[in-house]
Amino acid sequence: MGSLASERTVVGWAARDATGHLSPYTYTVRKTGPEDVVVKVLYCGICHTDIHQAKNHLGASKYPMVPGHEVVGEVVEVGPEVSKHRVGDVVGVGVIVGCCRECRPCKANVEQYCNKRIWSYNDVYTDGQPTQGGFASTMVVDQKFVVPIPAGLAPEQAAPLLCAGVTVYSPLKHFGLTAPGLRGGILGLGGVGHMGVKVAKAMGHHVTVISSSSRKRAEAMDELGADPYLALLRLDGKHVLLGVVGEPLSFVAPMVMLGRKAVTGSFIGSVDETAELLRFCVDKGLTSQIEVVKMGYVNEALERLERNDVRYRFVVDVVGSNIEEAAGAPAN
Amino acid sequence: MGSLASERTVVGWAARDATGHLSPYTYTVRKTGPEDVVVKVLYCGICHTDIHQAKNHLGASKYPMVPGHEVVGEVVEVGPEVSKHRVGDVVGVGVIVGCCRECRPCKANVEQYCNKRIWSYNDVYTDGQPTQGGFASTMVVDQKFVVPIPAGLAPEQAAPLLCAGVTVYSPLKHFGLTAPGLRGGILGLGGVGHMGVKVAKAMGHHVTVISSSSRKRAEAMDELGADPYLALLRLDGKHVLLGVVGEPLSFVAPMVMLGRKAVTGSFIGSVDETAELLRFCVDKGLTSQIEVVKMGYVNEALERLERNDVRYRFVVDVVGSNIEEAAGAPAN
Repeated sequence: MGSLASERTVVGWAARDATGHLSPYTYTVRKTGPEDVVVKVLYCGICHTDIHQAKNHLGASKYPMVPGHEVVGEVVEVGPEVSKHRVGDVVGVGVIVGCCRECRPCKANVEQYCNKRIWSYNDVYTDGQPTQGGFASTMVVDQKFVVPIPAGLAPEQAAPLLCAGVTVYSPLKHFGLTAPGLRGGILGLGGVGHMGVKVAKAMGHHVTVISSSSRKRAEAMDELGADPYLALLRLDGKHVLLGVVGEPLSFVAPMVMLGRKAVTGSFIGSVDETAELLRFCVDKGLTSQIEVVKMGYVNEALERLERNDVRYRFVVDVVGSNIEEAAGAPAN
Repeated sequence: MGSLASERTVVGWAARDATGHLSPYTYTVRKTGPEDVVVKVLYCGICHTDIHQAKNHLGASKYPMVPGHEVVGEVVEVGPEVSKHRVGDVVGVGVIVGCCRECRPCKANVEQYCNKRIWSYNDVYTDGQPTQGGFASTMVVDQKFVVPIPAGLAPEQAAPLLCAGVTVYSPLKHFGLTAPGLRGGILGLGGVGHMGVKVAKAMGHHVTVISSSSRKRAEAMDELGADPYLALLRLDGKHVLLGVVGEPLSFVAPMVMLGRKAVTGSFIGSVDETAELLRFCVDKGLTSQIEVVKMGYVNEALERLERNDVRYRFVVDVVGSNIEEAAGAPAN
């Protein structure tokens, strides 16, 4: 075990360049601060954003980069000020590991909208060191951004809830769409979409999945913008964007005016909403549909994800992959 | 006076073709039905939509067409089932004169979103006859679509409230923006925009007007879509479209996602909201800023409006223009 006084050596799987190919990488994480929780990673989901980041699709990638932001682990150490978590707890870490705590979104507990939020990887922490994600043996995370995984949820099942799950739960809650009996459409049935179907159905809604081939979709977006989807909405209906679409969205004003429709968006969800979703899933017996793979398979999994060949989320069994031993790293 | 048994001869000013030039036109309106209110027109505002309709910009114009949908008049006759209005009342008629009364929007008293709504002009009424608007001596309108003008509002002042005014009031109310102290922007300071400033300020908001020349605006919209405006919004901010913009709106998904912003729209307002706005204006001592003109000046007024040369709404003094005498029509 590490200690409060020393940095900790960790093995992760990192991309070294825009090929996005991951391979073992040994690095150090900060010494355990007063409010830090040291998490031994058990499972980590693979999100499409991991591909965008590893391959520098957004133009802001720094290498080496250890992706992964759907992290379920076990607490192995806590700082002296940590009150939320104890050694032995099973916990989750999502997309955000820091925020300013002073702005309006932070004070409203929607820290995902803080302009100074810190991403779990490909970002710089308050100590000036790069953040690294969950395809690694260990993460050190401020307790504020660590959520308890309730009893009754298998840890590998919980992983996709921490990003894909809360991405659909947050807007349903925020936009007042939790009372049963609504009719909704899910555009695209991938990792996020399949959670959308499950969560919306568990709330008692009637859900229609709208999907087509990538080529047709691109054509529809290029030629028609958002208009074909907006036409499906009734009075006060909402088109909620949850993921980055490549092309700009485009529509004519009467499409929203004549029906008071809205094109809006939502970005993952807060720590509070994540905890709420986890309890919701236990209450409803709701699980994600996943394919569990070992770390050695991660590059093939990323390729398969890129061609939509997964039903519906890959989760890496990090603890079962013995990545430290395989890399010849010292046990810490 | 007419009677329940006979049609009524009316003189209006009609466009005959897509030049949009208005000239006197004699026509008949239906005999007074059980729930009809016969309104002697006193004043009628000129809305930019009147230009679009008169000049067939929307491609669905039928001629001869008497425009005008910000109508203030005096009740001169009522059908036997009319309970809302009495002879001698000063009343208003807006954009809508019919709806199905059975659909969800109708049952929610937002009949402006009924797909079977009937426009005050350039539409066909339930009897198969064309509807004609307020640039005319008389209108016959179902009592449901007639609002009382409260004492304390000059009739010429009330006219712009019936379209421009309720167009800004309805979304402020619907989207929960009536509690004082918000910061809002008004894009464009025309007939609707100036009412937006007045109504929002009367609610206690801090209002910023965002305006530029037509050429710059077109450039900004072509090149940047809605993005420059969306960047001005904070968390949960809304960009509410109230008028038809020529070019499609365009923006990239993160602009709305990162801040949970919405691009939405609203379409005029309901009869109930119109009545509410009229009372609000009396309570707040709020008036529109208008230039009153005679009917003989209407074509020049339309030209000036087209080049934004009015501060901020033309209102035609219909009753003072003696249009029936000038056209040599029989008194009815």
